[in-house]
Amino acid sequence: MTTRLHADSELDQALALTRQDHAIFEGRLGEGWTIGHAVNGGVLLALAGRALQETIGTEGHPDPLVVSAYYLSAAVPGPATVVTAEVRSGRTMATGQASIVQPGDDGRAVERVRALATFGDLDGLPDDVRTSAEPPQLPAPDACVSADMAPKGSAGDLPFLHRFDMRLDPDTVGWAMGAPSHRGVIQGWLRMADGREPDPLMLLLAVDTLPPVTFDLGLAGWAPTLELTAHVRAKPAPGWLRVRVSTRNFAGGLLEEDAEVWDSEDRLVAQSRQLARAPKG
Amino acid sequence: MTTRLHADSELDQALALTRQDHAIFEGRLGEGWTIGHAVNGGVLLALAGRALQETIGTEGHPDPLVVSAYYLSAAVPGPATVVTAEVRSGRTMATGQASIVQPGDDGRAVERVRALATFGDLDGLPDDVRTSAEPPQLPAPDACVSADMAPKGSAGDLPFLHRFDMRLDPDTVGWAMGAPSHRGVIQGWLRMADGREPDPLMLLLAVDTLPPVTFDLGLAGWAPTLELTAHVRAKPAPGWLRVRVSTRNFAGGLLEEDAEVWDSEDRLVAQSRQLARAPKG
Repeated sequence: MTTRLHADSELDQALALTRQDHAIFEGRLGEGWTIGHAVNGGVLLALAGRALQETIGTEGHPDPLVVSAYYLSAAVPGPATVVTAEVRSGRTMATGQASIVQPGDDGRAVERVRALATFGDLDGLPDDVRTSAEPPQLPAPDACVSADMAPKGSAGDLPFLHRFDMRLDPDTVGWAMGAPSHRGVIQGWLRMADGREPDPLMLLLAVDTLPPVTFDLGLAGWAPTLELTAHVRAKPAPGWLRVRVSTRNFAGGLLEEDAEVWDSEDRLVAQSRQLARAPKG
Repeated sequence: MTTRLHADSELDQALALTRQDHAIFEGRLGEGWTIGHAVNGGVLLALAGRALQETIGTEGHPDPLVVSAYYLSAAVPGPATVVTAEVRSGRTMATGQASIVQPGDDGRAVERVRALATFGDLDGLPDDVRTSAEPPQLPAPDACVSADMAPKGSAGDLPFLHRFDMRLDPDTVGWAMGAPSHRGVIQGWLRMADGREPDPLMLLLAVDTLPPVTFDLGLAGWAPTLELTAHVRAKPAPGWLRVRVSTRNFAGGLLEEDAEVWDSEDRLVAQSRQLARAPKG
């Protein structure tokens, strides 16, 4: 039996899976989600979440609450297989595992991502909100800097960025003009370019969408993710998200990058932390 | 072939494993590491790390760099099996997976923890340290409150706490006198009671050793961990550690708890974040 899952917006198309077996899914990583030669890690996180939603998520646990992904090799555009397994299923939560695999140069399967995740029902959680964190203070979207400002075909014209409407706080984009703040913070407004509203899967993407925080430390090179864990804490309200990435421990050639995602109703809807390799530059 | 691994201090005894097979180890969870009926999650994290050290750690990747553990059911004192698997081995890093399993009431195996981890060589990392985080400001250990102050045999006399010399900042223990600060912070000095010096495995324990940060929010009940990811960023210098736990997003019956571990040379040697279930109380 093959079941085609929904495919509407650009993101839903990217996350479209064909079921090959109870726990095995075929998808396709698109050119439009690449940064350099590699597919963005947030899309892979969302793809793993999408497949797990179809396996461990079906028995009353529709939403990712926490996903931890270990990035093993760079994913490239083309076919991808997601192999899932249930680890434990309980009354209110279920835990599963997913691997994203692609054919390598010699045709043999190469694992790109190994992930663990716990799913639950965000709508079924209690209503109490005692968050002490404060949302980032940002100028209005129109007073921010569009991340899509690079001339078409230039080095800064990443296919990935065209998927989003991203407006960065001018106070945290000095690096784009050669004047990084060295505070280790980048923040801005984020929504999908095609108007798709945020949901828990989109939050898995959102935590790894802003430019790497190392740009604000004056390091222009790439900072590949070794591991990323995201907590999804509530269904986001429609509209703009605000995302803040920061780092406090750049040392030994590695750094942590924390991301916070706030929705239009000032709710802290997702948090993530990743361990990344510091750029050489 | 069974190989007895080293067993010196209380912690090394707790992490002692007998190899049953290339990738399968037998250990024993001791009564001394329990909180209530359950074995502390930090010990389980270190035990998973210890087993992986013997499998993926042997080819020049001796140290855990990042470990993500999903807690599936409460571990109890008694025998435990750690089943490991290599996921990927590269030149500078290796990724593996571990399950901690115990016999359940009916004798069938019950999984307690599923973990992913990436190992590397902390001694081989570059020397640059550009950490912007500041260590917690604490009164001297003698001016702090010993966490071991509960009368023997009282409800506060947890076997687990006797494994440590823990001195909590008086400014963050108001909850012990019925006056929690509600800031969501607990911090203090930490070392092993028997004088064992810290190392990367001990850091995996240290991130889950302080009282739950929810005590400082006025919630006396337990906050079971769903998932915990720890980054080990450097080998700790001998002597006292300083540990700070905090939370900023208590909502929907769940909370994140972040831990920072600083060594005696003011290096931020470990960071962790966990997703925990909020206490009812």
